[in-house]
Amino acid sequence: MKKIVLALAVSFLVVSMQAQEKIMGFTEANAARQLNWEKQFDASIKASNQDEWMKFLSSHPHHVGSPQDKANAEYMANLFRSWGYQTEIVSYYPLFPTPKTRKLEIVGNKNYKPKLQEPPVAGDKTTEQTAEQLPGYNAYSADGDVSAELVFVNRGVPADYEELARMGVDVKGKIVIAKYGGSWRGIKPKVAAEHGAIGCIIYSDPADDGYVQGDTYPEGAFKPKDGVQRGSVMDMPVYPGDPLTPDVGATKDAKRLDRKDAMTIMKIPVLPISYADAQPLLELLKGQLVPPSWRGGLPITYHVGPSVEKVHLKLEFNWDQKQLYNVIAKLPGSELPDEWIIRGNHHDGWVNGAADPLSGMVAEMEEARAISELVKKGYKPKRTIVFCAWDGEEPALLGSTEWVEDHQQELKQKAVIYINSDGNGRGFIGASGSHTLEPFFNEIANDVMDPQTNVTIKERHYARMMVRADAATRMKMLGNKNIRLGALGAGSDYSSFLQHLGIASMDIGFGGENQGGEYHSAYDSYDLFVKFKDPGFHYGEALTKTAGRITMRMANADVLPFNFNSFYKTVNDYVNEVQALLDNSRSQTEVENKMINEKLFVIANDPAKTYVPPSVKGLVPFLNFSNLENAMVQLKNASAEFQKLYGKATQLSTDKVNQLNDILYKAERSLINPEGLPRRSWYKHEIYAPGYYTGYGVKTLPGIREAIEQRNWTEAQGNIEIVAQRLEAYTGQVNAAIALLK
Amino acid sequence: MKKIVLALAVSFLVVSMQAQEKIMGFTEANAARQLNWEKQFDASIKASNQDEWMKFLSSHPHHVGSPQDKANAEYMANLFRSWGYQTEIVSYYPLFPTPKTRKLEIVGNKNYKPKLQEPPVAGDKTTEQTAEQLPGYNAYSADGDVSAELVFVNRGVPADYEELARMGVDVKGKIVIAKYGGSWRGIKPKVAAEHGAIGCIIYSDPADDGYVQGDTYPEGAFKPKDGVQRGSVMDMPVYPGDPLTPDVGATKDAKRLDRKDAMTIMKIPVLPISYADAQPLLELLKGQLVPPSWRGGLPITYHVGPSVEKVHLKLEFNWDQKQLYNVIAKLPGSELPDEWIIRGNHHDGWVNGAADPLSGMVAEMEEARAISELVKKGYKPKRTIVFCAWDGEEPALLGSTEWVEDHQQELKQKAVIYINSDGNGRGFIGASGSHTLEPFFNEIANDVMDPQTNVTIKERHYARMMVRADAATRMKMLGNKNIRLGALGAGSDYSSFLQHLGIASMDIGFGGENQGGEYHSAYDSYDLFVKFKDPGFHYGEALTKTAGRITMRMANADVLPFNFNSFYKTVNDYVNEVQALLDNSRSQTEVENKMINEKLFVIANDPAKTYVPPSVKGLVPFLNFSNLENAMVQLKNASAEFQKLYGKATQLSTDKVNQLNDILYKAERSLINPEGLPRRSWYKHEIYAPGYYTGYGVKTLPGIREAIEQRNWTEAQGNIEIVAQRLEAYTGQVNAAIALLK
Repeated sequence: MKKIVLALAVSFLVVSMQAQEKIMGFTEANAARQLNWEKQFDASIKASNQDEWMKFLSSHPHHVGSPQDKANAEYMANLFRSWGYQTEIVSYYPLFPTPKTRKLEIVGNKNYKPKLQEPPVAGDKTTEQTAEQLPGYNAYSADGDVSAELVFVNRGVPADYEELARMGVDVKGKIVIAKYGGSWRGIKPKVAAEHGAIGCIIYSDPADDGYVQGDTYPEGAFKPKDGVQRGSVMDMPVYPGDPLTPDVGATKDAKRLDRKDAMTIMKIPVLPISYADAQPLLELLKGQLVPPSWRGGLPITYHVGPSVEKVHLKLEFNWDQKQLYNVIAKLPGSELPDEWIIRGNHHDGWVNGAADPLSGMVAEMEEARAISELVKKGYKPKRTIVFCAWDGEEPALLGSTEWVEDHQQELKQKAVIYINSDGNGRGFIGASGSHTLEPFFNEIANDVMDPQTNVTIKERHYARMMVRADAATRMKMLGNKNIRLGALGAGSDYSSFLQHLGIASMDIGFGGENQGGEYHSAYDSYDLFVKFKDPGFHYGEALTKTAGRITMRMANADVLPFNFNSFYKTVNDYVNEVQALLDNSRSQTEVENKMINEKLFVIANDPAKTYVPPSVKGLVPFLNFSNLENAMVQLKNASAEFQKLYGKATQLSTDKVNQLNDILYKAERSLINPEGLPRRSWYKHEIYAPGYYTGYGVKTLPGIREAIEQRNWTEAQGNIEIVAQRLEAYTGQVNAAIALLK
Repeated sequence: MKKIVLALAVSFLVVSMQAQEKIMGFTEANAARQLNWEKQFDASIKASNQDEWMKFLSSHPHHVGSPQDKANAEYMANLFRSWGYQTEIVSYYPLFPTPKTRKLEIVGNKNYKPKLQEPPVAGDKTTEQTAEQLPGYNAYSADGDVSAELVFVNRGVPADYEELARMGVDVKGKIVIAKYGGSWRGIKPKVAAEHGAIGCIIYSDPADDGYVQGDTYPEGAFKPKDGVQRGSVMDMPVYPGDPLTPDVGATKDAKRLDRKDAMTIMKIPVLPISYADAQPLLELLKGQLVPPSWRGGLPITYHVGPSVEKVHLKLEFNWDQKQLYNVIAKLPGSELPDEWIIRGNHHDGWVNGAADPLSGMVAEMEEARAISELVKKGYKPKRTIVFCAWDGEEPALLGSTEWVEDHQQELKQKAVIYINSDGNGRGFIGASGSHTLEPFFNEIANDVMDPQTNVTIKERHYARMMVRADAATRMKMLGNKNIRLGALGAGSDYSSFLQHLGIASMDIGFGGENQGGEYHSAYDSYDLFVKFKDPGFHYGEALTKTAGRITMRMANADVLPFNFNSFYKTVNDYVNEVQALLDNSRSQTEVENKMINEKLFVIANDPAKTYVPPSVKGLVPFLNFSNLENAMVQLKNASAEFQKLYGKATQLSTDKVNQLNDILYKAERSLINPEGLPRRSWYKHEIYAPGYYTGYGVKTLPGIREAIEQRNWTEAQGNIEIVAQRLEAYTGQVNAAIALLK
């Protein structure tokens, strides 16, 4: 009896191991090997490394041009070298302005004395390094010396100006004050300038990341009253990187634009301030009450203004070139050295930058170290692994953009995937990326355990989605644990890979239990991080495990684990969305025009308040979606057929597998339109782009969607045809892959 | 040619006048006469009267038991008499507690010195009458002397305690602090006591009616930092009126309960405070952050507590009987003196009570005066008009409840309708009531012009609904201008008429452009009112015109303008709602139970925070709605048939018309269940009641709906049968009306 029982147990074990061993793109034998390496990888990960490296890297302010920025690059390069990587520091020389004069006054009011400084916090040593810090400023603001009445513009996005127009408030010749949030910060002065404002103040309202959200530093992680969010206001939705060298690397001798011709430099002066400095300015504002959704958390009544008193804003910058230090560390592939798996995170911070970016950077370093341990034990990545530590992400994705522009021909050929991370902390996995990667990523999320609970990061993600959903969504979602990848907009170093070159990309990180208000302030310190963001670096380890698996599976897959079905389904959702957007716009325009004609807006308005009714809008035409719809049907059929055949791919000859892999990772390139998007040709991906008026916020099918939003029907129709052509080209690649498998 | 043109013009005029002259329940000839009287009525209305009366009536605090309360009753009675009304002052003698001791301390903290007083405001004379004011207190709070840790309970409704239970916070033996709003205030200490709290503090958060909402008094109408909302915390969802004399008038020699047996007196001490007094208490609270929806507008981080420090609350009251002065003024009907049209508003205020209640009271007085002018010119109401000015509404609807209980036999026979108003101000018509009255009310809303715009109050109401609606609702609503009557819950003097006796009732008033934070505070003054609430009393005039028309058309209709179709449709909506409530509860329970079993709530929770998962709930059964559904079909058919025949009603013989009218106004009585609602037999209407746990908030089909909400399936089934029986009885009345018309 005993023997039989044992045999049964063993066979059960074998079955369950086999079931486990099926991983996308690997033969069974290779999968078993791969999973074994991953186990050893996990076992070698040490949280204490991340702690030690963060302590050093965050020990002094390390913004572009600072001594610590260079020291950090060298520190990391030495480590990568010590782990056996072919490592170089690659420098570029972009324009990087730093503040010379920052003056903010209420004209005729001597009592207003804004601090414009972040005082040290007891018990946090690095907050005392005020002499080394860049003070609160917005990089690529214009120089300016302006005095004018102040107007509150909420988040400063186009819809806010429509609302102001309804109230009869014009910002022409005024200085605007906007709350941080609701859009990428660079949108605020851009839209303000479009409306004729001559200056822009941005402040951190306590409702967004101050005492309203939680206890302030040092009791909690939220923004104290004098905390200031630094940040770039370059017009990155037009192009990121050095404003003087669009599309080419900012090498020493690159041809440069004249500064006055650089269209991404902001047109008006912009200054970020704390809520303590903002409150007296907001108290100057008269005029109508703000709409309820505009209110902040200060103990005042918010008005739109304008103020009676004038505000004086004077800003001058040092318009210098600064040297960037990208660290590039390669582990050449044993079989396919010209297929590159690129993993990156930036290393520059606005001040001490513990959470942003070092929490992600040290996780990446630990991946590199742990892989080097495996290599010592015989692990051989088939493909080349490239670890990158980018400089100058904060000002404008400078380091990654210049490197990608500089190496674009090589990258178009060799780059299989770019895997990005940035800040990381306690909580839940968050992932965005090319939707061909969704099943692959889910497989990995199912293999990594959450550090705090006894479930996988996928299970924990599902639990959160379910708990946060409303009743109707819960019913629909129940049992469906698939993690939907978000679409990539802008905000970190994947932009040039994905949106300029069409390299399939991912951006991952943990968060949700790491909230705070330290972002881009002097309080983003090591002390705050280990107290509030990821004590013990357990989520640093989880990021290492997750991103490490992505890197290693991509590096060693027999057949690259891209999935066209997943791409088709997602794009199909986007097509349905833009069609619904057009239809809703049509019916809403009809109803609103009737309401305007019947004067309902005027009649409903409080006559004691100024109200300028909206104008009747042109009717929304029907557009011809047939080419796009036909392209989608072809894509659907081809994708379904390919995925049916995918299981056979590992049985192909080496030569055919290599051809297939080439198609698989280059398929994303066919989504690139060489002409680029309207009015911003640098952005060439027809499925994903940052919003022209949202910044970070992604716009999918951007050419179509933004044209509909801007009511430019000719452009919308034109872009429907462009997207249809790109999808036809993409389907061509899928069909070529099918041909290899038949 | 000229002659012909003229003839055409005249005939057009006649047609359009005839079209106008069709008003519900009047023969054409009588309609023309009625409309002519209404024109004269409008012409005689003077805003200056309302101004003058409000100035006098609000000149001193006029709460129950104050000299001004009595003086006001006499002032009004004299006016009604001078206008020819048979007028009497009818007194009752209810229990009305006033504060003797109010002590609030932080134990061991001498620095906390709450004001518990509302300081005078410069430029507003009556705010200086501090010696005459009742200070901030909650009437019918228990006496008490308690010391305990403090817990923040948000609005203090049952859902808030469920949330606290999830955080592992128990209020047993604690003092709770709750924000005003979100429920009737009496719910807060009641639910607190049910959960074991020993004291309750209620404060006015600036997010609700202070600086967050708008400029504070005297710059604007919102609550200054020391403003306090007084108010009753009697358990009125059980029964309103004198706690010692339920169901009978509190006459001098009425039999009274012992105070300890009066179940509507609150079980724990309760004190309302200002936000200035509340902030230091809220700052004591430790523990978890409040859920985002619980946050208020103070410049602090809100925590749930408990506090480490103890709070000491000591309250003692004078438990006295006080004399009430209801003014009852009658104009006997010329033809049907035993059919009463009753119009009422209360006259007592918590302090100077300009907006609440005098703005409605003076509009009613002007109705009475203007009607008396018509009477001098020959106008003869067929039915008796009764104008009422109630005392003691603020503490517990005392005056109206005692009068209705005292006269219940007569009212059941004679009362055709009760028309209520209370506070009134600039803005939009708001109307709630028995749904048989909806078409009648809409006809009137179409005949009254809005004072600020060139449209009717109905058009303006429609404009607002459209402008405020989301896109989907706008599309559905476009062109449908019908004003839907709200359902009556509690909160003013209609309760005993409608919910105790089944007298069809309405409650109307203007508002929406009169926002402020003066409610039940010393700042509800004449000065504030004429500056911010209804400058020029133009909406006072509009209320006079609207309520005056309701009164006069009801008084003179040949056939009473009740509409059964409208009642059917509304109740049908309610039946659909409770069925959907049950179905949703069933599917949500299923999903939530699965989520609990899979530990999703625990997995999704931040392990750094205490979390107590909810327990699996019993499954929700299917209930038998067939009797109710059959009753609805019968009601639908009968109502449709009656409304088809209604046009013929004016042609009936006088005797038959009288019989028909008797049926029409008594039909609502058949909705009365003599046994009353579960656990609160005073409330007998099976369609409308105040919520047992919401207070003001109405619950329609209360017996069914609250049983489903409380998961008491046996009670729900029983109440389905009761409602079905009441609707069958109602349909019996409709059929009797049809028989008269056939």
